Amino acid sequence: MKGSAVLNRRSIRKYSSEPLDEEMLVEILRAGMAAPSAHNQRPWHFVVIDDRSKLDAIMVVHPHSQMLREAPMAILVCGVPSKSKVPEYLPQDCSAAVMSMLIRITELGLGGVWLGVHPNPDRENGIRSVVSLPDGVVPFAIISVGHPDAEKGPSGRYDEDRVHRTNW
Amino acid sequence: MKGSAVLNRRSIRKYSSEPLDEEMLVEILRAGMAAPSAHNQRPWHFVVIDDRSKLDAIMVVHPHSQMLREAPMAILVCGVPSKSKVPEYLPQDCSAAVMSMLIRITELGLGGVWLGVHPNPDRENGIRSVVSLPDGVVPFAIISVGHPDAEKGPSGRYDEDRVHRTNW
Repeated sequence: MKGSAVLNRRSIRKYSSEPLDEEMLVEILRAGMAAPSAHNQRPWHFVVIDDRSKLDAIMVVHPHSQMLREAPMAILVCGVPSKSKVPEYLPQDCSAAVMSMLIRITELGLGGVWLGVHPNPDRENGIRSVVSLPDGVVPFAIISVGHPDAEKGPSGRYDEDRVHRTNW
Repeated sequence: MKGSAVLNRRSIRKYSSEPLDEEMLVEILRAGMAAPSAHNQRPWHFVVIDDRSKLDAIMVVHPHSQMLREAPMAILVCGVPSKSKVPEYLPQDCSAAVMSMLIRITELGLGGVWLGVHPNPDRENGIRSVVSLPDGVVPFAIISVGHPDAEKGPSGRYDEDRVHRTNW
């Protein structure tokens, strides 16, 4: 069972100075768009941020984003409720896209970490302003991504006490 | 870029009659528990359902679950808000676990599909009753899983119009 990107994925917050090439970026975005969504509504958009001043500005408005100081790139996943006939599943749809991208990042030998934005109003307002989001677009989460500067083994976090059979 | 479980994952609703062995089940659950969660709170539990009468009972209370007629197993992902100091991220945490499991299912050569439960009150109440969930536990989503009875190619759903650069 070695070689599973799902099991090997870890949150990577330290990156080398190597930039991300466009081909890899497209592979990551493709993974986001390969995620399932409720009723296949696909209510997401992606903002790619590799401008240093923008990355620095995110660090001002998001309290847990200091890894962006070294990251070559961030990808903001946005949800657009008006694009879905089942907008109550927007968090699920956007989370599925984020998770697909994080596992694809692992498959590509890169490292990334998930920064929560929605539903924290301060973070949402701050990010909205940094990347000029129009009304009706929800800044859902940020992925910080780069070439990893350190190796982490699998977490191996299996806990039998969390598994129930047939009934709770 | 062949061989990516992330890109090859599809929603699989048709299964052969072959049951799922315990080793594969543990691999799938391990993937769920390898998912990241906000502040590493890991506020999820899993109910494994392979009892035919329970699977049939889910079909009565969930309107889009007819694939369970042939599925050998369903895994209910539950969220426990009281286990997290940031319960507002429960949908993200549970969705990350679901998505990790779905991609692991693909890695293992199995097939699965995500059935939304939360935040639909009728589905939540129905599922709660079928598997005797205690108060304070949220039935979040169901994964139907089995050996696939049909092959599906990658969806290839890439859409450049959803990608923005630096600003929206």
